[in-house]
Amino acid sequence: MKFDIAILGSGNVAWHLSAALENAGHEITEVYSRNLDHARKITGRLYATEATDRLDFSESKARVFIIAVADQAISEVADAVILPENSILVHTSGSMGLEILEYSSASYTGIFYPLQTFSQKRELDFADVSILLESEDQETLQILKKLASSLNSPHYTVKSKDRKAVHVAAVFASNFTNHLIGIAEEIMNRQGLDVEMLKPLIIEQISKCLQIGARGAQTGPAIRVDFPTLEAHHQFLNYNEQLAEIYRLISQDILDAN
Amino acid sequence: MKFDIAILGSGNVAWHLSAALENAGHEITEVYSRNLDHARKITGRLYATEATDRLDFSESKARVFIIAVADQAISEVADAVILPENSILVHTSGSMGLEILEYSSASYTGIFYPLQTFSQKRELDFADVSILLESEDQETLQILKKLASSLNSPHYTVKSKDRKAVHVAAVFASNFTNHLIGIAEEIMNRQGLDVEMLKPLIIEQISKCLQIGARGAQTGPAIRVDFPTLEAHHQFLNYNEQLAEIYRLISQDILDAN
Repeated sequence: MKFDIAILGSGNVAWHLSAALENAGHEITEVYSRNLDHARKITGRLYATEATDRLDFSESKARVFIIAVADQAISEVADAVILPENSILVHTSGSMGLEILEYSSASYTGIFYPLQTFSQKRELDFADVSILLESEDQETLQILKKLASSLNSPHYTVKSKDRKAVHVAAVFASNFTNHLIGIAEEIMNRQGLDVEMLKPLIIEQISKCLQIGARGAQTGPAIRVDFPTLEAHHQFLNYNEQLAEIYRLISQDILDAN
Repeated sequence: MKFDIAILGSGNVAWHLSAALENAGHEITEVYSRNLDHARKITGRLYATEATDRLDFSESKARVFIIAVADQAISEVADAVILPENSILVHTSGSMGLEILEYSSASYTGIFYPLQTFSQKRELDFADVSILLESEDQETLQILKKLASSLNSPHYTVKSKDRKAVHVAAVFASNFTNHLIGIAEEIMNRQGLDVEMLKPLIIEQISKCLQIGARGAQTGPAIRVDFPTLEAHHQFLNYNEQLAEIYRLISQDILDAN
């Protein structure tokens, strides 16, 4: 089933999602951005999509309208957009609930949240993007499921309350793990050591963790209750109090969890 | 160049290393364990290796002796082992220095530290294992390099002082990232949510991080200086004070680093 879809926004999510949806056979009718040049960057790689800086879609043939802007801008776009009859308006945010769309002119609202880190520079297959869906309207939910299926994306119906938990979990699993690898990079650089030597370990550790779960994959001085090593590492980090405290706290949490 | 090698130890490192070395064409002459059955588990999958629970190798034809036991047991083995003339004794620990081998009867000593997480259940290609080498004797260092090369392992000459830094970095990059994914799993489980939905995000985030470095790959509320989300997440975690503190501290460190 093919849909006519308008994309409201011109960031990384809009960039990847518009191309993926067109690839899946849907028609992207318009891409909106306050800055017309930004919209044109996206429409330039689509088949026949209008770039617009106006939020009046009363004449649009689109049925589904996807807001893909920063969290703080969602309500502004949702409140201002003029939609045709019988239209579905969704946003793509992990943090915002359905209620942020309640003053819009949409007949139906929903959430279409791709749980993924998007960069313009990295190609991304939507088969590797979990999409979290929500709507109070069953027919709308079915349409969102069809959209996600057309992208071959694993998708899950998740209520706003639970989506918040997913978002917190994602911060730990993704943003924080990234930062800890960053700390490791800095420790290596500070010592003039090649960061490259850590990479096979990181890859194997994460693969093992995803295969058997973190609990079974845990190694290191804390899980071995190896206090001499924990103490030596803590001493090593005394050049940066905050780093030493992060080391102490996570080690403590590993000790407590086991 | 092929070597005759004895393995002292019967844990995961001994298990993987002995098979990899034999595969690379070296002869594993003996595997030692205090518990003969443990040694036999390993020799059982090798071509013609003697299992032994005695540390007298005066009659062994091995030239290289690799201690692969827990850190606390290294000195005991090193002090007790009786080695033939002209032998090289190395250990495989990330935390211990060369000096732990100084009372041994070895002619030469060194370190052959595979920077990897080993599990008996997961096959591991030594091409994906960084090996950190050290010796005060240049000829010994050359032999260790040849051994690592024969395994197709990327290898690095790293002094004990620097190896300690690598070990601390590895704890952040591997043990701690694993634990943070464990925290994410628990947040999901607590809410009855499918952990599976996080996996594509974790894979993409780590891939991006390894490709462009952690700094460039950082996303999330802290790097966006999105205080409302940081505050909401912190509130969400108030069921576990230590978790909330980990969230706060790592977020603070991301804020400070940028």
